[in-house]
Amino acid sequence: MAVVRALVAPRLAAASTFAPLPGLRPLLPHKPAPSPRAALHGSAPRPGARVALVLSGCGVYDGTELHEASAALVHLSRGGAEVQIFAPDVPQLHVIDHTKGQPSESESRNVLTESARIARGKITDLAQLSAANHDAAIFPGGFGAAKNLSTFAVDGKDCKVNKDVERVLKEFHKAGKPIGLCCIAPVLAAKVLRGVEVTVGHEQEEGGKWPYAGTAEAIKALGAKHCVKGVTEAHVDQKNKVVTTPAFMCETELHHIHDGIGAMVAKVLELARK
Amino acid sequence: MAVVRALVAPRLAAASTFAPLPGLRPLLPHKPAPSPRAALHGSAPRPGARVALVLSGCGVYDGTELHEASAALVHLSRGGAEVQIFAPDVPQLHVIDHTKGQPSESESRNVLTESARIARGKITDLAQLSAANHDAAIFPGGFGAAKNLSTFAVDGKDCKVNKDVERVLKEFHKAGKPIGLCCIAPVLAAKVLRGVEVTVGHEQEEGGKWPYAGTAEAIKALGAKHCVKGVTEAHVDQKNKVVTTPAFMCETELHHIHDGIGAMVAKVLELARK
Repeated sequence: MAVVRALVAPRLAAASTFAPLPGLRPLLPHKPAPSPRAALHGSAPRPGARVALVLSGCGVYDGTELHEASAALVHLSRGGAEVQIFAPDVPQLHVIDHTKGQPSESESRNVLTESARIARGKITDLAQLSAANHDAAIFPGGFGAAKNLSTFAVDGKDCKVNKDVERVLKEFHKAGKPIGLCCIAPVLAAKVLRGVEVTVGHEQEEGGKWPYAGTAEAIKALGAKHCVKGVTEAHVDQKNKVVTTPAFMCETELHHIHDGIGAMVAKVLELARK
Repeated sequence: MAVVRALVAPRLAAASTFAPLPGLRPLLPHKPAPSPRAALHGSAPRPGARVALVLSGCGVYDGTELHEASAALVHLSRGGAEVQIFAPDVPQLHVIDHTKGQPSESESRNVLTESARIARGKITDLAQLSAANHDAAIFPGGFGAAKNLSTFAVDGKDCKVNKDVERVLKEFHKAGKPIGLCCIAPVLAAKVLRGVEVTVGHEQEEGGKWPYAGTAEAIKALGAKHCVKGVTEAHVDQKNKVVTTPAFMCETELHHIHDGIGAMVAKVLELARK
């Protein structure tokens, strides 16, 4: 281990905000935890919209779709936003072995702990998120939104929404602050904000291009209005300041999904400036 | 559960390549596993470079830095590449609780299984990767490269490299096919390909901007040449066809890291076409 100390530890000890090599942290002098804000940004906070990103785990089948979260963070970074990342401190509904697509029955994981993989350690319990401290909130998709942030995957239109997710959505809505959601996450807004307009893409499968097209019917059953959009587009509900994009609801190349999330983030930041 | 069947299952059963709701797969009729190739792309393979992406887990502190992997996949998708994702079927050195930066002593996870979270389930054992079937290989960073693909995190310049990683690097090199690496992953090339030129960024900390600057010395101790580059740049070793970019070795905004990886991918695809 002497080699590690010589090569790495002195550098890490000097690092201020880049979280150090934690597997080796027991070898290092104790240092205070970095600020949870500006999770993936440089050390100097920039002026810009203060955006809360709400995660639901790490991995499409039991948590946040990590490419969607990463795309949102890239576009928020480019848009000059100051991001703080949140997740609920609750157990995951499932741990899915992503090689098999099957639940790993013997395992349990925590939504906050797994979401921290996307947040590079800088994450805060969702219970502490208050709309008063942020200009906008964004919810990436992944089945975590339907399994851990709500019971949609099990209960469909009769789903319940995690109490902090419901509180946060209502707080931002009441404050007139924009909310962005993608993929399956729009069901959260559809359930909580009556009459909201959202998109989950197209309403027909079109030969497998929209394999989850049936979700549009569920959106309507929840009392929301479904608006058909392409994968590179975002739908803006101007009245409710809710912005949605289909993302991985569409079977397509990743860069189209990346661009659609870019369109969603741009609209959220535009509404946040108004 | 009836609601799920009614709303979701019929749609999923019809989906051809978008992997279905695996947590609910026990409820669904059996369907054959999708092809592992074109993991994040549409169903029709496109002409373009065939690129192998090699992962080391899912999460910066014990696996692949997932934002780096996602950025590489976005740029490969935009560049028209046909991607197949690989990881070694070995235990992780650590499972790090990313909220605490500490190893979770009671847990063990598998590198292939966790990497499948980034690959959305479409992943192949690294033992099956042959340079004969691909035009280029790309290794994202994250401490998994130094913990699971090699022992660099523990042994520094005396590290050993996973035998399949070593074999793959030598095969692509011998075949004159380009290899891209970012963040800490260039140590793999430095160890295996004698005299190779790589970058891990700057060689001084510069007040915390380059917290891992000491890695450049380790690169030299491994017998490689270190070339100083900025975070949005890629260094090309034309002779060895090795392309590297600093990525998260730099403390900066995420979009700069995304763009640096874009520069690396563009150079790899350019070399693959030659």
